[in-house]
Amino acid sequence: MLTLFELCGARGDVRFSPFVWRIKLMLAHKAIPHETKTVTFTDKAALTGSGVKTVPVIKDGDKWISESLTIARYLEDNFSGDRLFETPLAAEQAVIINNWFDRNIVMPMFPMIVTDIYDALDTANKKYFKATREPRLGGRKIEDMRAGRDELRAAFRANFSPLESILATNAYLSGETPAFADYCLMGSLVWPHIVSDFDPISESAVLRDWRDGMFDQFDGLAGNAPRAV
Amino acid sequence: MLTLFELCGARGDVRFSPFVWRIKLMLAHKAIPHETKTVTFTDKAALTGSGVKTVPVIKDGDKWISESLTIARYLEDNFSGDRLFETPLAAEQAVIINNWFDRNIVMPMFPMIVTDIYDALDTANKKYFKATREPRLGGRKIEDMRAGRDELRAAFRANFSPLESILATNAYLSGETPAFADYCLMGSLVWPHIVSDFDPISESAVLRDWRDGMFDQFDGLAGNAPRAV
Repeated sequence: MLTLFELCGARGDVRFSPFVWRIKLMLAHKAIPHETKTVTFTDKAALTGSGVKTVPVIKDGDKWISESLTIARYLEDNFSGDRLFETPLAAEQAVIINNWFDRNIVMPMFPMIVTDIYDALDTANKKYFKATREPRLGGRKIEDMRAGRDELRAAFRANFSPLESILATNAYLSGETPAFADYCLMGSLVWPHIVSDFDPISESAVLRDWRDGMFDQFDGLAGNAPRAV
Repeated sequence: MLTLFELCGARGDVRFSPFVWRIKLMLAHKAIPHETKTVTFTDKAALTGSGVKTVPVIKDGDKWISESLTIARYLEDNFSGDRLFETPLAAEQAVIINNWFDRNIVMPMFPMIVTDIYDALDTANKKYFKATREPRLGGRKIEDMRAGRDELRAAFRANFSPLESILATNAYLSGETPAFADYCLMGSLVWPHIVSDFDPISESAVLRDWRDGMFDQFDGLAGNAPRAV
């Protein structure tokens, strides 16, 4: 059976990686049976043999595959079930769309929820996370990052316009049913949902409504997932 | 006949807008007969009736259409000729791809070539351009912006990775022949080519080779266009 490796917090049932969530939702989309195993920032023993140290990683038989877009394409090429990409060219150009979500959705949310991620970790992982992530915060302390996030959220709203323009005339970013682009966005948004009470997209009714529908998908896979808060 | 409105410099044959170039190339792609009219930053009298003040604008019969993506979709829906979008969904999701190019290719090149754009304008337009663009330069003077652009170019290279990954296995961003994504990129790159001797993509052999092919397209439409330098 296929194995998906996930990042967890101090509690093993708190699975918060945005990139892993993209794959969790895609596995559900294609109805691919799988089991999950967890790693933490400081204990990645389960990934020995994969050649990489960052999740998502899947193991299918004796094959290891890493990086969310590479995994998405692997799932599309090797499993039946609903399609993730409309055409082979769409799978190629997905690298641009994937990068758009990473830069315009994931990265801007990081300072808004970094304190909450930190709070969800155990002592050893807190130490690791602080040492590796605080240098990305422009001289600020992780513990102080909740201050000012209302302003970051207000500015973040400008990034939504391409998404809102698609959703003005489509139920999903991928048309009438969700597919790759929707899981890119939803994985990104489950991340704050799992670790935080702060909602980075609260100002967009269009995105909130879309997210509500995605929360309910697959018997509430994302909406009912254990939260740290 | 359809009319395309273009921005020109002090010399009327110097047409440098990256967004207009996207449309010029798409008109050629679909072999749509058209004439062009020019405007400058300070003289947009030709656009009276369009309701907008920024090019590209086209007039088709008595219909005005503005904004490059809206125009691209209009051309696709109303003219035969080679397709710009593989599917209707691709035309919808193109808003994400279009935004990716604006943010990751056009915007980072602006400080590298802003002095060259300035130099290509006449006195009245220089004054307007300086007043409206200098506030975007973080306190620096337009005339001083050539200093430091080597460092900006070196950092800019990181933005190419999604494009280089597509071009590793495809002749064009749109597969075997150019289409929308290619014209988004090429329009963006004709902009520095027209106004400057500084090449923002000189460090990427993959992008340079792709651009050389695009320069030759349509009897050298882009490659033989009059330059300010």
